Amino acid sequence: MIMDATEADGPQIEDIAARIDAFGDEHVDALGAIWEEYLILGAEDSGYNFLVDRDGDAILGFACYGRRDLADGVYDLYYIAVDPEGRRQGTGRGLLTASETAVLEGGARMMIAEASGTSKHEPTRELYRAAGYRIEATIKDFYSAGDDLAVFVKRF
Amino acid sequence: MIMDATEADGPQIEDIAARIDAFGDEHVDALGAIWEEYLILGAEDSGYNFLVDRDGDAILGFACYGRRDLADGVYDLYYIAVDPEGRRQGTGRGLLTASETAVLEGGARMMIAEASGTSKHEPTRELYRAAGYRIEATIKDFYSAGDDLAVFVKRF
Repeated sequence: MIMDATEADGPQIEDIAARIDAFGDEHVDALGAIWEEYLILGAEDSGYNFLVDRDGDAILGFACYGRRDLADGVYDLYYIAVDPEGRRQGTGRGLLTASETAVLEGGARMMIAEASGTSKHEPTRELYRAAGYRIEATIKDFYSAGDDLAVFVKRF
Repeated sequence: MIMDATEADGPQIEDIAARIDAFGDEHVDALGAIWEEYLILGAEDSGYNFLVDRDGDAILGFACYGRRDLADGVYDLYYIAVDPEGRRQGTGRGLLTASETAVLEGGARMMIAEASGTSKHEPTRELYRAAGYRIEATIKDFYSAGDDLAVFVKRF
């Protein structure tokens, strides 16, 4: 069942992030910093919203999204992550749909998801494509030489 | 003379921002929040660096830039602003050059500057173009319907 993340979910969220191949140490650290902000300030003031897909005590995956400052009705999908041991069961798609439902309630005109162009991130890009996201912009060699930034956009 | 901003520069920075036509209230508030982070955490931990162009006690303009998380050698130019009463004296260009010099010392491969496509922001876009920035990506209707995001990039 997908619901807002609570403080007790922190260790499982960090554990999933640490076991995801496509997340480097810097990703895991950045996620930890965002999670702290979410816990301390709350979703409204931090600008970060966390959803988890919960099965009993187990977290199957999580999503993090937030409203973009200075733009009208624009939301960023910062993270969407599924436990590597439970892939291909629709968890990612469910979290994406739940995130979209939430931002639409907030008046979203579009959701933006940035993705790396490397092969490790292909499952994420495929998830976005299947859900109707299109690459509207690319910055070559953004993450590093040979690793482009793809900006996926879904307009509502 | 261009130098790192100090706490005492806060009121003049806010005053300049408040008098710039292209900055709405939400811009001024967002700038204030970034400035607080810079003061409390410092440039290293906040990720925000502020430069000012100082003439005696007067601030002629300011720039704010920072390293992008998770990308290698990518910096964002968040703000560049010149006192509306002292335009066309090279202050903006000087601040931009000083920001570039600083990020190059940090190993920058590229600097990214996001700009609105509206006519109010044309002086900023002209500053970027004259300094060798090129629009590498555009997101239509990003800020609002009819107001696109232009992503200017300069590669070093």
